[in-house]
Amino acid sequence: MNECKKRREFLKSTLWEKRQNMMTDQKKGLPQPPFEKPFDEKGKVIPLIPFEDIQLGNMTLREVVHRRRSRRRFTEEPLNLEELSFLLWSTQGIREVYQGKVTFRTVPSAGSRHPFETYLAVHNVEGLEPALYRYLPLEHSLLFVKKIENMKDKIVEAALNQHFVGYCAVTFIWTAIPYRTEWRYSLTSHKVIAIDIGHVCQNLYLSAESIGAGTCAIAAYSQDKMDKFLGVDGEEEFTIYVAPVGKIAG
Amino acid sequence: MNECKKRREFLKSTLWEKRQNMMTDQKKGLPQPPFEKPFDEKGKVIPLIPFEDIQLGNMTLREVVHRRRSRRRFTEEPLNLEELSFLLWSTQGIREVYQGKVTFRTVPSAGSRHPFETYLAVHNVEGLEPALYRYLPLEHSLLFVKKIENMKDKIVEAALNQHFVGYCAVTFIWTAIPYRTEWRYSLTSHKVIAIDIGHVCQNLYLSAESIGAGTCAIAAYSQDKMDKFLGVDGEEEFTIYVAPVGKIAG
Repeated sequence: MNECKKRREFLKSTLWEKRQNMMTDQKKGLPQPPFEKPFDEKGKVIPLIPFEDIQLGNMTLREVVHRRRSRRRFTEEPLNLEELSFLLWSTQGIREVYQGKVTFRTVPSAGSRHPFETYLAVHNVEGLEPALYRYLPLEHSLLFVKKIENMKDKIVEAALNQHFVGYCAVTFIWTAIPYRTEWRYSLTSHKVIAIDIGHVCQNLYLSAESIGAGTCAIAAYSQDKMDKFLGVDGEEEFTIYVAPVGKIAG
Repeated sequence: MNECKKRREFLKSTLWEKRQNMMTDQKKGLPQPPFEKPFDEKGKVIPLIPFEDIQLGNMTLREVVHRRRSRRRFTEEPLNLEELSFLLWSTQGIREVYQGKVTFRTVPSAGSRHPFETYLAVHNVEGLEPALYRYLPLEHSLLFVKKIENMKDKIVEAALNQHFVGYCAVTFIWTAIPYRTEWRYSLTSHKVIAIDIGHVCQNLYLSAESIGAGTCAIAAYSQDKMDKFLGVDGEEEFTIYVAPVGKIAG
């Protein structure tokens, strides 16, 4: 249990008291990293439905919170693009780019750093070819990333053989780009990055539930296999949390 | 930055692949820790309003998500007991005690371990004497913990002089009792404990917003001072996240 006790330190805020004296890249005047991972502008970009045109999410908050369960069994029904747009808006949607310096989103993040990218393994969404996509929050669009052979089975394997992680309509896979937060918060970043992905995922639980869908997020995956599945380097960007989403039997 | 890179490891799921071979207290047959921190039955317990009798939270999910902001400025208006009951239900309320073994709550937690206690520094809630309380989720009641002289100023100091942390209607202070999760997940516990408190707090953001209140959670506090403020040992139980709540103008 001594190793556990050491790991508990990560959950404490002990370092925050020393933050005033901590040198950070922001204090050094180094440029802020981008809000969104850059992408090839010749890539295939699919616009999503803007929030103003989305008709979903009209269940009351009390009802949604009351109904929410961890859902691991999904029907064969597809999601449609409006539903997917709603889930992406509610988890990472940008409300405002403030003075070109910071994004305000539908979820809170320490110092508004928002150190995440959202990848989607799309299995069964109307109008979308099954493939790996990435959400572009600034454009509220999807970027086509790549086609993956036997995608369902590959992601199940990367999820340590949890079948439901591939057998769903769409698997959300969030990566962390920790430097976005480290640029400002240095060594005090990592606790808040973990908390921040919890904020994000709770909005997924609720918005999914409100459209007759559900999720059960997992931290039990192979770090190496999931990072390779996405094609990220595992150091400056790596998988942090995974949430399969599908319709549920009513 | 090398120290940062080391800390990034905490956010990865590298250890989960080895979990099958990891000895845990659960596998050793050691007894499960209680769902709720024990308390003196002679203590002062104040029943809260049951979920069925709460009329709040009728804003639609889309509206709540759309409105939510990080709120640091509150009016002088008190919360009432129904509002406080709703916030506590939505963040840690128990839906079901399943086979006496596990609690299902309004928020998800890895393995349904729910390794948190909720303390409230009550400053301005109708019908409650300003003091420190603890939420009893099994009883859906408040336990009176202690009266604290100059409570507002003491909690501001413990929050590294962030004034709004004491100048609000009620300050939520969550502690982690990590062994509840470690009993099952051993070394893989700590990432998911941090994520889990993010789930909890996002429900607070939303449920507060839905009643014309708001919050802005902070990880920037003095670990030692906040733990002493609560009277917890800082090892088996320690502060993990803090969220001041108050009514907002508008």
